[in-house]
Amino acid sequence: MTNLDTIVALAKRRGFVYPGSEIYGGLAGTWDYGPLGVALKNNIKSLWWHRFVESREDMYGLDSAILMNRQVWQASGHVAGFSDPLPPRFDLKDPKPQGRTFNTMFQTQIGATDEAQVSYLRPETAQGMFVNFKNVVDSFHPKLPFGLAQIGKAFRNEIAPRDFLFRAREFEQMEIEYFVWLKDWEIQFAYWRGQMLEWFAELGLVSDKIHELEVPENDRAHYSRRTIDFEFDFPFGRKELAGLAYRTDFDLKNHSESSTVDLSYYDEEAKERFIPHVIEPTFGLDRTVLAVLANAYTEDDPPAGGGGEKRILLKLHPRLAPITVAVFPLLKNKPALVTKARTIFDSLKASPYKLVATFDDNGNIGKRYRRQDEIGTPYCITIDFQTLDDDTATLRDRDTGEQERVAATELVDKIKTSL
Amino acid sequence: MTNLDTIVALAKRRGFVYPGSEIYGGLAGTWDYGPLGVALKNNIKSLWWHRFVESREDMYGLDSAILMNRQVWQASGHVAGFSDPLPPRFDLKDPKPQGRTFNTMFQTQIGATDEAQVSYLRPETAQGMFVNFKNVVDSFHPKLPFGLAQIGKAFRNEIAPRDFLFRAREFEQMEIEYFVWLKDWEIQFAYWRGQMLEWFAELGLVSDKIHELEVPENDRAHYSRRTIDFEFDFPFGRKELAGLAYRTDFDLKNHSESSTVDLSYYDEEAKERFIPHVIEPTFGLDRTVLAVLANAYTEDDPPAGGGGEKRILLKLHPRLAPITVAVFPLLKNKPALVTKARTIFDSLKASPYKLVATFDDNGNIGKRYRRQDEIGTPYCITIDFQTLDDDTATLRDRDTGEQERVAATELVDKIKTSL
Repeated sequence: MTNLDTIVALAKRRGFVYPGSEIYGGLAGTWDYGPLGVALKNNIKSLWWHRFVESREDMYGLDSAILMNRQVWQASGHVAGFSDPLPPRFDLKDPKPQGRTFNTMFQTQIGATDEAQVSYLRPETAQGMFVNFKNVVDSFHPKLPFGLAQIGKAFRNEIAPRDFLFRAREFEQMEIEYFVWLKDWEIQFAYWRGQMLEWFAELGLVSDKIHELEVPENDRAHYSRRTIDFEFDFPFGRKELAGLAYRTDFDLKNHSESSTVDLSYYDEEAKERFIPHVIEPTFGLDRTVLAVLANAYTEDDPPAGGGGEKRILLKLHPRLAPITVAVFPLLKNKPALVTKARTIFDSLKASPYKLVATFDDNGNIGKRYRRQDEIGTPYCITIDFQTLDDDTATLRDRDTGEQERVAATELVDKIKTSL
Repeated sequence: MTNLDTIVALAKRRGFVYPGSEIYGGLAGTWDYGPLGVALKNNIKSLWWHRFVESREDMYGLDSAILMNRQVWQASGHVAGFSDPLPPRFDLKDPKPQGRTFNTMFQTQIGATDEAQVSYLRPETAQGMFVNFKNVVDSFHPKLPFGLAQIGKAFRNEIAPRDFLFRAREFEQMEIEYFVWLKDWEIQFAYWRGQMLEWFAELGLVSDKIHELEVPENDRAHYSRRTIDFEFDFPFGRKELAGLAYRTDFDLKNHSESSTVDLSYYDEEAKERFIPHVIEPTFGLDRTVLAVLANAYTEDDPPAGGGGEKRILLKLHPRLAPITVAVFPLLKNKPALVTKARTIFDSLKASPYKLVATFDDNGNIGKRYRRQDEIGTPYCITIDFQTLDDDTATLRDRDTGEQERVAATELVDKIKTSL
């Protein structure tokens, strides 16, 4: 089991994730994504969006505001019930601290002075979809079943943020509300369970590190009639990575009543009007980044492909790696090598495939390999003197350390098969 | 000049942008992006990110937290100075309301009860980059000049939010902090001015609607020695769309002093240590969405390509359009046509190019064209009986209304040239 501190240190050293507001001593529970972290996170987001929104005909993307009218949170039950128990004797000045609770929504005031209304930073993205249900139905007339999907930030004032990206005060969710007929909820629940497992496989997460936990009734949220937590073996233990809940018609019904706007759906074929039921697959994006990093972290000792010292590498799937391919001229002071390397680099960048190339001429080749291994770059291409003769270059595989000579014209084809 | 109300109505009707929290009477200054709006916004973001980050070797992406330690905002001057004057006699209960001001940062409390600290929702993304300057330098050892870039939300408690997406309380910025030698600031300022104009051209914004305003000294922010506002002819007048500022070494110097962390840069070649100067190109993302919509909105009367009624279309650049191509079987009750249309649809979706396809078999072809025109889909492909004979389909151009017969195997090539 990889130590969490090792991951945190690598993430900082190599520019994946930095502590938030670090030069001012930090702000607990906030993290800043560095250049490689934002690339990794964006790759996860766009794979998710492509899989669950763009490639489907039954899914509608949304991006709703973080600030919402406080009535949303009254109707959803968050104002009354979104509380964590404070630890006993937390407040030494309070003689009876036992059983005190604390609403974990961040509160703010919206509007100037006298007209200001209290509201909250959203603690989940889900409500932004429920309150737009009617808007999407009116614009697109979708046929049931259909879903809304959203990626966005949410905020919870955790009493004890911890475990790196796992329990943060500011985080990002990838969430789907899938609207179904009541009679179909079980079949749809099973379908989405399968979809979620396929998604974890697409990320390259080792399947024996994923565990399904059937949440018992007394642990489920009050609105849920069935919930499965998908847990992952994080360095600090088995914890929730994603969840699947059958929310019944609780949310749309509640918002219909509270807002007095009719959120029912009219089924043209059945000639029937009703409130659809909801299956909700939800994914923690930062937790996914952490799971992907922990899953990829490998110490290779002795290293594959030779070389004495222990090798540290991230076995990231090529689709997720911040950099797909690094291009090296063997020597930086040989203009013919550098020019040829630049030509190959440019041809890689011009390909229509989602392929990020970087150019590195700094230090010896062994060191350059190590640098790319540590950030998970699956391919390195070295341009040497033979390249000038026969237009082939060495293509090195990150995981095996093996090198093969490949015609320059075939490099893109070789690489794209893994994407 | 297109009326703003027309754009707002189209945006809502067709699923680009809905008022935030609408079923609860809204929340002034917040907007929710619907399915087509999020697609348009994502296209703008990914073009920007590709142009200014991924395709360059001198740029480092970031995604810093919205919640930051309050000391960041003390050092930046926002706690003391980020205020708007309240309108005179705004508060009738206050006998001396003249000259009162109001800090437009949203305030919140972070941490549980007694340990809570006051902080703010960031009013700009810039500071997230300055406080990570040292982190990026330590991880990547970049050579000057280089830049940090970020896309993210920011929040301002506007006293009077207005003009649709233009002046909202929650909005998104695309921002670059480009670090340069003091001696180079003018040349770099000129370079970035050119880059910004190229970006507006890439968006397809009509160049005579873009105006540069040299901001006079007494109107500039205190840290800026030169600022150009790029204004756009919005439906409600000529207003700021983007800005370019020379921020001197103000921010890094201030944060160095306030945090006591050394934010200087060591130039290996000159053997010199100093605080770099900053050129800041900044773009309002929501304003860009609005400019793109207003720029694209067209009423075609009489319509090109025939048909009696006035035609409403969005002349979006194909790179920006939420849907690149719509595929229509001429008749939905002819299985041979539907099957063939599905085959062509699938081949479009499988292409490696950034091309979003939709399938529509609903209503007559004329109505389907009108629907796609109104959401800016540049191409429609109709599969008819001739397609079954000779494997050609009609490709219709949104702007001219012209149709040509194209071999099914050449459709992707035809479309991709415009992307």
